[in-house]
Amino acid sequence: MSKNILILPGDGIGPEIVAEAVKVLDVVNQRFALDLNMEHALVGGAAYDEFGTPLPDVTMDKARAADAILLGAVGGPKWDNLEDRELRPEKGLLGLRSGLELFGNLRPAILYPQLADASSLKPEVVSGLDILIVRELTGGIYFGKPRGIRTLENGEREGYNTYVYNESEIRRIAKVAFESAQKRGKKLCSVDKANVLEVTVLWREIMNEVAKDYPDVELSHMYVDNAAMQLVRAPKQFDVMVTGNMFGDILSDAAAMLTGSIGMLPSASLDKNNKGMYEPCHGSAPDIAGQGIANPLATILSAAMMLRYSLDQAAAADAIELAVSKVLDKGLRTGDIFSAGMTKVSTKEMGEAVVAAL
Amino acid sequence: MSKNILILPGDGIGPEIVAEAVKVLDVVNQRFALDLNMEHALVGGAAYDEFGTPLPDVTMDKARAADAILLGAVGGPKWDNLEDRELRPEKGLLGLRSGLELFGNLRPAILYPQLADASSLKPEVVSGLDILIVRELTGGIYFGKPRGIRTLENGEREGYNTYVYNESEIRRIAKVAFESAQKRGKKLCSVDKANVLEVTVLWREIMNEVAKDYPDVELSHMYVDNAAMQLVRAPKQFDVMVTGNMFGDILSDAAAMLTGSIGMLPSASLDKNNKGMYEPCHGSAPDIAGQGIANPLATILSAAMMLRYSLDQAAAADAIELAVSKVLDKGLRTGDIFSAGMTKVSTKEMGEAVVAAL
Ligand SMILES: CC(C)[C@H](C(=O)O)[C@@H](O)C(=O)O
Ligand SMILES: CC(C)[C@H](C(=O)O)[C@@H](O)C(=O)O
Repeated sequence: MSKNILILPGDGIGPEIVAEAVKVLDVVNQRFALDLNMEHALVGGAAYDEFGTPLPDVTMDKARAADAILLGAVGGPKWDNLEDRELRPEKGLLGLRSGLELFGNLRPAILYPQLADASSLKPEVVSGLDILIVRELTGGIYFGKPRGIRTLENGEREGYNTYVYNESEIRRIAKVAFESAQKRGKKLCSVDKANVLEVTVLWREIMNEVAKDYPDVELSHMYVDNAAMQLVRAPKQFDVMVTGNMFGDILSDAAAMLTGSIGMLPSASLDKNNKGMYEPCHGSAPDIAGQGIANPLATILSAAMMLRYSLDQAAAADAIELAVSKVLDKGLRTGDIFSAGMTKVSTKEMGEAVVAAL
Repeated sequence: MSKNILILPGDGIGPEIVAEAVKVLDVVNQRFALDLNMEHALVGGAAYDEFGTPLPDVTMDKARAADAILLGAVGGPKWDNLEDRELRPEKGLLGLRSGLELFGNLRPAILYPQLADASSLKPEVVSGLDILIVRELTGGIYFGKPRGIRTLENGEREGYNTYVYNESEIRRIAKVAFESAQKRGKKLCSVDKANVLEVTVLWREIMNEVAKDYPDVELSHMYVDNAAMQLVRAPKQFDVMVTGNMFGDILSDAAAMLTGSIGMLPSASLDKNNKGMYEPCHGSAPDIAGQGIANPLATILSAAMMLRYSLDQAAAADAIELAVSKVLDKGLRTGDIFSAGMTKVSTKEMGEAVVAAL
């Protein structure tokens, strides 16, 4: 049965890195007879420039119709000063996440043995690191209302946002997290700030409740400030971590950086049927856009995650991941992961090397 | 003129470490003829056990009357399951911060050259590290209303908190941050999430406005997820960072842990007249309480900060800091900072070594 993939290159380095991932998908499409149809659309600043909005209806319609979505990255200084905040590139991304109910964000932080030196941490602290951060992606303070900036009676302005979760939102992300832990090391750490924030008191309570359905998974709780410390001190103590949208944004970036090679890390954002959007953990890197030097591997690995989670094509996913490992073994490196003695390659050369290794 | 110091040992290791800091204060009190009067009071779980509340009126009255406060730490599993959340130890700490309007929280993250090995980061990444995090401490989501857990029409519960700042709250912490930067490397990085949260759009705007009064300080802005990454990747790029209560909680703990020796780091919480409460960055460590092995140096260094910021006794502060440096040079180490070849000492031996070095 044919599958529709929507390709959203986005802004900055997005188009360059996505182009390489598409080449890789083309190869596995043939090799494994996947019958993938790929269509492109605009999102973010690129969509704003063309349609005056970061998430045009045509893009949203295609996204709804697609079986899975591969996204590059959005945003850049060109659009940072748009008066109307609703028109900024990030709103396109947030609109996709929320419109498609992609509440389950999986962010692996894996240290590739070939790139062990890239970490700013001591080798013994990070060697073999393999953490999965499960971040709630369509609720919490990112989407809570009321929100805005208002003028008080004394003439001063006040900015406000609302951090809110209800039981079912917490329960569904808890299930994703427990099921992920079941497939891995069977340890789940839920991160909250239950000593201060009521919303996370409820979070903790529901986590404990859902835990009863997963007796094989060991659940622990940690305050977010301590979690940030423990990630720096001894990250290998973690298997799966689950947390809300805002804490997940912060902790997943910190965890990704522990590996020293954020240019390598993919992510998945899933709805309740495992339909998903896949994107690299890194951003649109406007400073190096158009130079052909960005690392396409996080996007290529995101395509592999897409095959595995949304399209049930584990063999094709394995093949891509193996090919990436092979090009690393060969010493091929883009600038961000380059070290002495290795061969520096461009975005395109890296993409083509993965194709060749396939 | 005589000065009143309120000593709040608190819970867990609090009483042990505070006792050593008091010995040190006694010595400088005499040596520098400071005319300090020290009084003790209960806060946190210890106060709950005695008075049924974590912040009894008698403690609050003494705190208001004092010129400065030295606190150990609060909290522990003994009180974690108190039904009424308002009675938990943390509420005592939060009540002091807010009741005394201690909005300016200064958290230095300094790597002691004698303890360079303790860090989980590579030496070249952290050697010479010296960052100051300025955290807003009496506003933001910690104190914002409405807050709570309510039952929705469909019978489900929902937890909610409010992240709110007005212009004057932002302006006064901005001033503390710019003035701190002026006395140091003249670089200030303001951390927000202005691409998602309106409250931090206002934060960024006011930071830019206040910057005009400090033309000698270079202001930059960073999103909180990126700040967490940059602290791990290259922390020495920062001089002073300023952020709100919640982000400051997370980032200051991450920054502290970069040094590998959180048992060494003091903090100050100041009101608009530089009256302040001083406490170690670490917590009450209930797991090692009563064993006499906790590191008293963060509390002793907090006492030094108190002399410097609230009591204008820089010479006495310098003397304490020098004494701490000397005991480290001698190789004396509590368990948390112990490494091969050093001499392991108890809480009391460490305190007495500082007294001797004075
Ligand atoms: C671009 C931004 C809105 C987004 C977020 O905060 O979620 C990004 O940081 C991410 O983590 O995917
Ligand atoms: C104990 C807790 C309420 C407190 C906080 O979150 O502010 C602590 O983590 C701190 O940073 O001083």
